[in-house]
Amino acid sequence: MPLRARTLLGPGPSNPYPEATVALGRPLLGHLDPVFLGILDETSDRLRQVFGTANRRTLPLSATGSAGMEAAFVNTVGPGDVVVVAVNGLFGQRMVEVAARCGAEVVAVEHEWGQPVDADRVLAAHPSPKLIAAVHAETSTGVRSDLQPLAAGKGDALLLADCVTSLGGIPVRLDDWGVDLAYSGSQKCLGVAPGLAPFTISDRAWERRIEKPQSWYLDLGLLGGYAGEAAGSGRTYHHTAPTGMVVSLHAGLGRIIEEGLDAVHARHAEAGRLLHEGLAELGLELFAAEGHRLPELTTVKVPDGVDSAAVRKELLERFDVEIGGGVGAYAATVWRIGLMGANATPDKVALVLAALRETLGR
Amino acid sequence: MPLRARTLLGPGPSNPYPEATVALGRPLLGHLDPVFLGILDETSDRLRQVFGTANRRTLPLSATGSAGMEAAFVNTVGPGDVVVVAVNGLFGQRMVEVAARCGAEVVAVEHEWGQPVDADRVLAAHPSPKLIAAVHAETSTGVRSDLQPLAAGKGDALLLADCVTSLGGIPVRLDDWGVDLAYSGSQKCLGVAPGLAPFTISDRAWERRIEKPQSWYLDLGLLGGYAGEAAGSGRTYHHTAPTGMVVSLHAGLGRIIEEGLDAVHARHAEAGRLLHEGLAELGLELFAAEGHRLPELTTVKVPDGVDSAAVRKELLERFDVEIGGGVGAYAATVWRIGLMGANATPDKVALVLAALRETLGR
Repeated sequence: MPLRARTLLGPGPSNPYPEATVALGRPLLGHLDPVFLGILDETSDRLRQVFGTANRRTLPLSATGSAGMEAAFVNTVGPGDVVVVAVNGLFGQRMVEVAARCGAEVVAVEHEWGQPVDADRVLAAHPSPKLIAAVHAETSTGVRSDLQPLAAGKGDALLLADCVTSLGGIPVRLDDWGVDLAYSGSQKCLGVAPGLAPFTISDRAWERRIEKPQSWYLDLGLLGGYAGEAAGSGRTYHHTAPTGMVVSLHAGLGRIIEEGLDAVHARHAEAGRLLHEGLAELGLELFAAEGHRLPELTTVKVPDGVDSAAVRKELLERFDVEIGGGVGAYAATVWRIGLMGANATPDKVALVLAALRETLGR
Repeated sequence: MPLRARTLLGPGPSNPYPEATVALGRPLLGHLDPVFLGILDETSDRLRQVFGTANRRTLPLSATGSAGMEAAFVNTVGPGDVVVVAVNGLFGQRMVEVAARCGAEVVAVEHEWGQPVDADRVLAAHPSPKLIAAVHAETSTGVRSDLQPLAAGKGDALLLADCVTSLGGIPVRLDDWGVDLAYSGSQKCLGVAPGLAPFTISDRAWERRIEKPQSWYLDLGLLGGYAGEAAGSGRTYHHTAPTGMVVSLHAGLGRIIEEGLDAVHARHAEAGRLLHEGLAELGLELFAAEGHRLPELTTVKVPDGVDSAAVRKELLERFDVEIGGGVGAYAATVWRIGLMGANATPDKVALVLAALRETLGR
């Protein structure tokens, strides 16, 4: 069967940077090979740069972004700990679910979907939570929420940020802002195939971690003997790292750093601006609150009388262009268009606009 | 820096089948693309063939083999459940640890390392466990334990088998034997890069599963809406599957099935036999109990007075050949030589024997 070369303009995965794909063709290395360990250490260094952190414990976890979320909670909260979660989309909801499975007492602060997090309400939700959690870039709604106000008011609490859709697309400066833990996914603006969850945790959070998390696989204490912290000597085997994927992430990050973080963010901003303008010209309405729209993930209201799924199907079959539907209550009424990593370019904007124009008959 | 093309003859990862590497160069697909879902379903079918099972719920989990172990326990045992674990190496020990983190009451049946599991002792360890767990092919010792006697005597208990190092190397016939749950890893005899954990669970085990496991990421009930069970319509998004890795696993499994499972097993058996003979000719002694030696993973006693790490270093630096050290108490006194998947061939045997001969000065 002929291969299909899709242009992946949904909420992720995105088409990887060419450098990341080329790296998958490199001869596979063992997870204890000194050559690989050097690449792993460099990968952690590069992750520190894109996360904007000096955290010693910064590493790619061997699973997808959702496992990064799970790792964040299982390592920091246990039965009875109070967790305040800002919920303004699907991934906030997921945080509530994951924290509850750790036995935490969860205070969910619900927001209307499409709106950013209201830091005042979140900070007022409980006088002394152990952890406050929020999504920096909500993949379900295309909304950016500012983390700095949460950090400024967190007091003694730890602040956890979901950076799955923000990292590599818009500025992330964890240390400047005061974020204690964050995770991401390889397959969005980092421009690598799905399979890894970049993760970082501050010393402050580390000191208050759960000594023996309910998850062995995601136990940062055990993982720290292999990656992140233990630069140099004395590597302890924990599990077999997905070496090929790490080498690919290393290459994707290398590409981003070579292009320059500011330039990469500017490229995403410009692509998003072009898309938002073009959608308006097509008479389409955006879903996310103005002033908080992500350039890398745009939510569009499906026009009345238009079959969302049929349009997506035609885009995929006729143009090999994948865009996403909405989620939850907005499954059929919102489209999600991603311009992430390698796809944050004017040609991809032109393609998706042209394909939408023709498919919608506008 | 020049790339190093290693010959990976340790306990895994192994060099992938060429088909699996080539597949990584295919254009990346989205996790909800019908083309990808077709490949995912075929991958489950192929996994059923190599696992020797008709289990509807057979799928690749989005993490490495150790996460397969964790998925097996979190979905089947909770606080107070009795779990009997046969421990004859590191991975049996790990099972004890993972089960304990689920709150299980664990009965560990210890064996001398290098020996196979004694089914009578394991079955006598507790009158009515919920789960009995054993490692089919102990990666730490190179020992095969027969699962049939455990299955025959399991009574009402569920039987869980670690098939990380057996699957694709020696016969695995879960349904014939009566194994209820099993997991593996992509990076050993399946001949794919590390990053996925093939997993299967019988209807019998499914009916007694934990409704809401402590892990959200590995919750088979949620995963079942996306992969494995839900052939055809109504896919529910759970997490972003590592699509590139799944396509690579699909290709690796396709290679195995095209070559023929019996032929693949025979190739591993022959390579192992050649290696065992050659090591004897070098005057080296095997560690694993005779009659239970894995062809795909051979444990060798380090001769007195030989520096294990120095030999491994020379093999790696001079010959680009990776072999493994021992683990635990045998870290410095045992080598582990893998002939897995694509590497189960006479040329790899000849290479490692020649390199050892020269390095040891024999």
